[in-house]
Amino acid sequence: MATAEFTKDLCTPAFIVDLDIVKENAQAMQERFQKIGVQLRPHMKTHKTLECADIMTAGSRRCIVVSTLAEASFYADNGYDDILYAYPLPFDKVDRCAELSERLALFHIVVDNQHALQELKKRPLKQGKVWKVWMKLDCNNGRAGLPHFDSAALQLAQEISEAPGVELTGIYAHCGNTYACEGEEQIKDVAQETTTLTLQFMEKLKSAGIHGPKSSIGSTPSCSHPVPDMAMLSEVHPGNYIFYDVQQSLIGSCRLENVAVRVLTRVIGHYPHRNQLLVDCGWTALSHDGGGRLPTGYCIIEGHPDLKLLSMTQEHGRVEPISGKLDFSQFPLGSLLSLMPYHACATAMMHPVYFVHSKGKITGTWKPTRGW
Amino acid sequence: MATAEFTKDLCTPAFIVDLDIVKENAQAMQERFQKIGVQLRPHMKTHKTLECADIMTAGSRRCIVVSTLAEASFYADNGYDDILYAYPLPFDKVDRCAELSERLALFHIVVDNQHALQELKKRPLKQGKVWKVWMKLDCNNGRAGLPHFDSAALQLAQEISEAPGVELTGIYAHCGNTYACEGEEQIKDVAQETTTLTLQFMEKLKSAGIHGPKSSIGSTPSCSHPVPDMAMLSEVHPGNYIFYDVQQSLIGSCRLENVAVRVLTRVIGHYPHRNQLLVDCGWTALSHDGGGRLPTGYCIIEGHPDLKLLSMTQEHGRVEPISGKLDFSQFPLGSLLSLMPYHACATAMMHPVYFVHSKGKITGTWKPTRGW
Repeated sequence: MATAEFTKDLCTPAFIVDLDIVKENAQAMQERFQKIGVQLRPHMKTHKTLECADIMTAGSRRCIVVSTLAEASFYADNGYDDILYAYPLPFDKVDRCAELSERLALFHIVVDNQHALQELKKRPLKQGKVWKVWMKLDCNNGRAGLPHFDSAALQLAQEISEAPGVELTGIYAHCGNTYACEGEEQIKDVAQETTTLTLQFMEKLKSAGIHGPKSSIGSTPSCSHPVPDMAMLSEVHPGNYIFYDVQQSLIGSCRLENVAVRVLTRVIGHYPHRNQLLVDCGWTALSHDGGGRLPTGYCIIEGHPDLKLLSMTQEHGRVEPISGKLDFSQFPLGSLLSLMPYHACATAMMHPVYFVHSKGKITGTWKPTRGW
Repeated sequence: MATAEFTKDLCTPAFIVDLDIVKENAQAMQERFQKIGVQLRPHMKTHKTLECADIMTAGSRRCIVVSTLAEASFYADNGYDDILYAYPLPFDKVDRCAELSERLALFHIVVDNQHALQELKKRPLKQGKVWKVWMKLDCNNGRAGLPHFDSAALQLAQEISEAPGVELTGIYAHCGNTYACEGEEQIKDVAQETTTLTLQFMEKLKSAGIHGPKSSIGSTPSCSHPVPDMAMLSEVHPGNYIFYDVQQSLIGSCRLENVAVRVLTRVIGHYPHRNQLLVDCGWTALSHDGGGRLPTGYCIIEGHPDLKLLSMTQEHGRVEPISGKLDFSQFPLGSLLSLMPYHACATAMMHPVYFVHSKGKITGTWKPTRGW
């Protein structure tokens, strides 16, 4: 890819997106869940752009997940609806959530504690609307959510479903613990556990007379290798799959060929006395995610498995061979290298513009939203 | 600070800047070098805003350093001049550098190799202008620059000074190796070494009949504790000092009281079963810089030396006590914590807007430029 003609005209560092791979990743995920009759509600956090959202929603502009209210507003302003703000309701943002709930046909929020429910009661929605609330359940991920084994979970679900002006719309579980997996088998074990625990909770709800709520689990690893029981869920909500990255390939979610994004960088210096070259990609263009722990450092340098991105400062990256002497004649000053990011979400976040290409040509630019 | 009245109205996560500390840091640096007759040319890379640049230049809007051409254009568009682009000339940006050189009274570039000089010769400046070139010298920092011990350095300097349409404006050395120091004594050792090597090189230039060029060294640690010989330099170019951060306090550049910036975050979840709380600050608001290696993790939580920011995902931070049981009643849901960043440059980079406060009140917002 680094040798494709279009790359020569780009100022570096540049975040480039392979449109064809993006479309393949989107379609594969759509087909995977269409086949088993589960609603795909893709997460926007990885890219935060309109164009990519259109691809992930197959043009419907409906049924998405966001990680910030800035994203929610950005998509709402651009004709999107049925937006789920998958974040434990922050009390400073109740008013903004209320406005989105009143403005959109469907705006969903997430709570995992009693106090959040009280905040919602203090701000009843206008226009006869009700708060659409998903309760977050922690199925051994260990981040947000009431633990599945805690009786407080059923209790809160009951209180939400009984509260005036509030609807218990669903149960939401994120299996971020798939990120510790290596290989499909381990991913499926976690996917199965999360699915089983979520479905068991849905049964508890039914036993308590609560029949309406949907169920949703997600993460790119689990949704890339779903287990059959996931067909019993209402929805899934993966996000990173649209780009994938080196981390996902190590987890076993994808192969490196499925990774849609690169940071294009140029060689800006030769330093034979320390067997290193410099590239114009520092942490402002790649992020520090991954901590440089790959055998090839902070990324994979495409086509050069023998090279390592050893360290970065704000705008510089130090590249050296994993072993042996660097052949500088292979990397003339000004020549391009193509870096496959460890974590696409973190790398995309560093770029105010993405350069999109297809079949060897730049086809457009995408501009993400930022902030909170 | 977390309890100051103004913080309650801010949506979190928010990057907040103490204007009074910024002004103190700016003034201390200005006075330090005024006293010894050395020109301060402050670096903009840490904040990338107009307002902070005005403070660092004491309103002159002249004599700054930038790390990207986006910064250069941003400042040029806003009436700044005498801008030094302190980066090994990237060959894809020669035209943009030429335009800035033709447009501004003074636009300086940096080169550290023969090929860059050839690129300049291929693009002579219009309007009778000459390329203002600083040659980068590596005084044991080990990033960009020709090594001080390499005879190629003097040779390149001579070629630059003899090339038509090109002026050898100065010799530029960055002592980034001060970042490995602990304490004032070690900082001064590196500052002395960089100064000595740079001044020795200036003597070599004189012996070769080259008398015009200026000399500049810099880094926040060395410029916070300058050695007397630095009075013989023409310029210094520190940047981070305007905010300082935890890293600088550990190096010995400043005390924690001098750190001007925080990330304000709210408690969004209590998880007693794992002795943790969640805050709404993930790596999108703090960056991964520092790798979580502080005893208190990824930052210092102001007023709570017993707490640790253990890990972050995109929008969540996990906080737990360094030891013992967390007293959740001290940290109600929705309450604020104030995080002192490990690396202010990396944290500022994550924020599209900075909230500036003075004497307990928000006085304005600053918007940084981004990209390259």
